[in-house]
Amino acid sequence: MSCTSSFLADQAFLGNNIRVKPDCDALGALGDLGWYCIGAILWVLDYQLPHYVTALPEATLNSKGIILACNASLHWERETKTAATFYCSFLSHVSMDLTVCGSCGSLRLNDLAIPYRENMAFFRLSTGKGWTSGPEEVQVEAQLPQEALMVQEFAQLVKGIKSSGGSPDNKWPEISRKTQLVLDAVRRSIDIGCKPVYL
Amino acid sequence: MSCTSSFLADQAFLGNNIRVKPDCDALGALGDLGWYCIGAILWVLDYQLPHYVTALPEATLNSKGIILACNASLHWERETKTAATFYCSFLSHVSMDLTVCGSCGSLRLNDLAIPYRENMAFFRLSTGKGWTSGPEEVQVEAQLPQEALMVQEFAQLVKGIKSSGGSPDNKWPEISRKTQLVLDAVRRSIDIGCKPVYL
Repeated sequence: MSCTSSFLADQAFLGNNIRVKPDCDALGALGDLGWYCIGAILWVLDYQLPHYVTALPEATLNSKGIILACNASLHWERETKTAATFYCSFLSHVSMDLTVCGSCGSLRLNDLAIPYRENMAFFRLSTGKGWTSGPEEVQVEAQLPQEALMVQEFAQLVKGIKSSGGSPDNKWPEISRKTQLVLDAVRRSIDIGCKPVYL
Repeated sequence: MSCTSSFLADQAFLGNNIRVKPDCDALGALGDLGWYCIGAILWVLDYQLPHYVTALPEATLNSKGIILACNASLHWERETKTAATFYCSFLSHVSMDLTVCGSCGSLRLNDLAIPYRENMAFFRLSTGKGWTSGPEEVQVEAQLPQEALMVQEFAQLVKGIKSSGGSPDNKWPEISRKTQLVLDAVRRSIDIGCKPVYL
């Protein structure tokens, strides 16, 4: 798997945005953009945590030590040696790519976090044999934009608890918690010279 | 930059092909498929060698130590901290992706080594601002398949020397030599536990 999330921040952003200040969102590009990469990668593996993560060399930090760009790899110690790399950056042209390469097929999409269109998303699926069979485009229609779906889901969960005596759905905090665990491990790996950090 | 080159080899290939035998093409998937990744990455930077390379953890070797799959990163020590990752594998579905993300634009193609079509290749170019401006498709027509163009180039070079008193064109051996240097450095990094290898 590989995933990217980047955009080219302007000087105003790099000087004053809360995402580049130690006393605000101190995880920088990793906390802002890497979050989407890690979330997508965990989604592919049904939220199974990697056994360890490793930052790649040459993360770019600002003068206060905030990450402006970094690469990392995630590793699952299984027979298939499943691995993922991701890149997050405030210093590159906008990208939101996810590529998943399995044994018998692969899928690619380029608008991971913010779809190009609100009513339809697509990914390219390759399952053919041989070198020259191109991918097919799979379209997924949406009745509502993803932000509206999120609010709808949230409202239904609240309603279920307030009106129907339901209990909180553990799915969402579990996803957030696991994403944060991986994110913190990448930051730690950067801090200790790109050594592996086990989860 | 990121690049992949992979295909799912069958048991006959994994048992007997020259690419998985120590006394034949002993560089395995790195020598066979990684070659294309390294060549493409060097092409992007006009064949400027990286300052160092690092294999990522968990390369897959067969019982004789031949690489069946590996990830690596290449690093150029410049102000922009240019970096590339690549993945080459005999154990994954076919892929031939190149993604180049610059400051102000990015390009992507998915049929790097063997074009889907012989008379036309395309890449997707993104230069727009904002999150929702999708890429444009840039088509490049070819009068002849790439293999024919290669033979044509070779024949013209030979003719230039034999008939016109020209000297050998250093371009091609220089590209091969640099590709091999990076390839050998990745193999060395795998052998020494994924430590950086400087070129």
